[in-house]
Amino acid sequence: MFGEVPNTHVGQEFSNRRRAHEAGVHRPTQGGICGTKRNGAESIVVSGGYKDDEDYGNVIIYTGHGGQDSSKNQVSDQTLEDSGNAALVTSYLNGLPVRVLRGAHARSQWAPAEGYRYDGLFRVASYGSKLGIDGFRIWQFRMEAVEGTPLPVPTPQGDQGRLPEVDTEKAPTGSESPGRVTATIQRVVRSSAVKRQVKAWHNDRCQICNLQIEVPGGSYSEGAHMHALGSPHDGPDTTGNVLCLCPNCHVMLDAGAIVLGDDLTVIRGGVPAGRLRTDPRHAIDLDCVRQHRERWRQ
Amino acid sequence: MFGEVPNTHVGQEFSNRRRAHEAGVHRPTQGGICGTKRNGAESIVVSGGYKDDEDYGNVIIYTGHGGQDSSKNQVSDQTLEDSGNAALVTSYLNGLPVRVLRGAHARSQWAPAEGYRYDGLFRVASYGSKLGIDGFRIWQFRMEAVEGTPLPVPTPQGDQGRLPEVDTEKAPTGSESPGRVTATIQRVVRSSAVKRQVKAWHNDRCQICNLQIEVPGGSYSEGAHMHALGSPHDGPDTTGNVLCLCPNCHVMLDAGAIVLGDDLTVIRGGVPAGRLRTDPRHAIDLDCVRQHRERWRQ
Repeated sequence: MFGEVPNTHVGQEFSNRRRAHEAGVHRPTQGGICGTKRNGAESIVVSGGYKDDEDYGNVIIYTGHGGQDSSKNQVSDQTLEDSGNAALVTSYLNGLPVRVLRGAHARSQWAPAEGYRYDGLFRVASYGSKLGIDGFRIWQFRMEAVEGTPLPVPTPQGDQGRLPEVDTEKAPTGSESPGRVTATIQRVVRSSAVKRQVKAWHNDRCQICNLQIEVPGGSYSEGAHMHALGSPHDGPDTTGNVLCLCPNCHVMLDAGAIVLGDDLTVIRGGVPAGRLRTDPRHAIDLDCVRQHRERWRQ
Repeated sequence: MFGEVPNTHVGQEFSNRRRAHEAGVHRPTQGGICGTKRNGAESIVVSGGYKDDEDYGNVIIYTGHGGQDSSKNQVSDQTLEDSGNAALVTSYLNGLPVRVLRGAHARSQWAPAEGYRYDGLFRVASYGSKLGIDGFRIWQFRMEAVEGTPLPVPTPQGDQGRLPEVDTEKAPTGSESPGRVTATIQRVVRSSAVKRQVKAWHNDRCQICNLQIEVPGGSYSEGAHMHALGSPHDGPDTTGNVLCLCPNCHVMLDAGAIVLGDDLTVIRGGVPAGRLRTDPRHAIDLDCVRQHRERWRQ
């Protein structure tokens, strides 16, 4: 249950956690993170319970779960073993959208005046640990609103002094000072249900070089279309057209440094270099293999 | 001279190529592609001279240069050796913005009624070769308008029958059908002047694993901040904070699977694994090394 929930809209208010639970926007009535290490986090609640949280409207610095006593003081270190924190790492590694609910509290102008409000989809842009205000290790997740998510109307009683963060990596090129180009999108890799299926079959192991990139909290791979989507290529968005690759082999496939033979030989720089690893559940579409190879004239 | 040009605006019209040259939006008065293999393409002109071109407004399928006779018929194969085509490959590999000028012609509703018009910045999203209408090999580049670029007003005499292409990989998650998540951004890597400097010093060779990814037409690497930009990290955007990495090592650095010691030992999965390759021109900021390591608590 990732992404938008039927019959709810961004900005919708809920008088309490029970109502948000019934609507399906945040299913647990207690925890702040809904999700598992295996599947990722489907939703979080930002309600002022962690004093290290920071809220800039379209960017939220969200403190992970754990280590608090009943008075909301941090009394021990947080870890990535906590299932809620591990779920947010999985969301980062797979680029999954996370529903954000904000709850009323006095410290933020972006919190609702009362109750809870669904504020749309965010993604985990980065994360890391530091010593928190109370002197214990906390994990923090930088949550960024997905494109098109509207800012809520600021609440007057909230902290008005804090300005939205400027992320210098996110400055759109089109609006920069004349003659200067400092920020450009270099590579955008998107996940989809089709890609996630292929990645799961291969357990994030590259079908070309066999590398499985392990990171704290999970593993990482990318779904790569052979016959590219969109004009002028117009390939199909099917599992037969998608390979599970490490980022390096993905770059080489997309730029024609690697093509495949009809017998699934990997041809790298024009030279045969092993064979694509396959899985019985994952039938490769040979039309797509040929289309990709023909695109690079090999 | 990449990106916007001083004293010009999107939608600005030029009565002829000479005027566009004087304004600096497209410097050559003849060729359709301005640029070099080394630096990339700064601008292109789309004016109906190649019959395989397709124009969807915010997406242009742009045919590369070469192989035509004086009547604009394709009489031989195009190649990536052509300096204009090679420039567009460099733009793809580095994510550089390309200025697009459209010239008047009858086949497209997106062409101006007369003269030339500057229509903003595009990026090369993908490319490949195929047999063109005239039966010779052509290279085509999928140019996508950067975010925020307005569509021109359609010209009545143009072809009205063609609908804008739907790129299924680009559907924003926020507007999808309820309960279905099919498209998510997985990883966005941006280039900047600082990153390009570091990549140039290292000639696209990974400072951690020494891999240089070679593809037809160039080589590929990524600039990686150790101490991440933006809250909660707030690292500096300086060359001392940036490493030249292959995509795989970049993923591992960002997710804490790789950290560096103060002596620039590479620590992978907690175990020393060689030393960062350095260059006399590229001083590493040890504060950033420590901030990154501390973020992963090693």
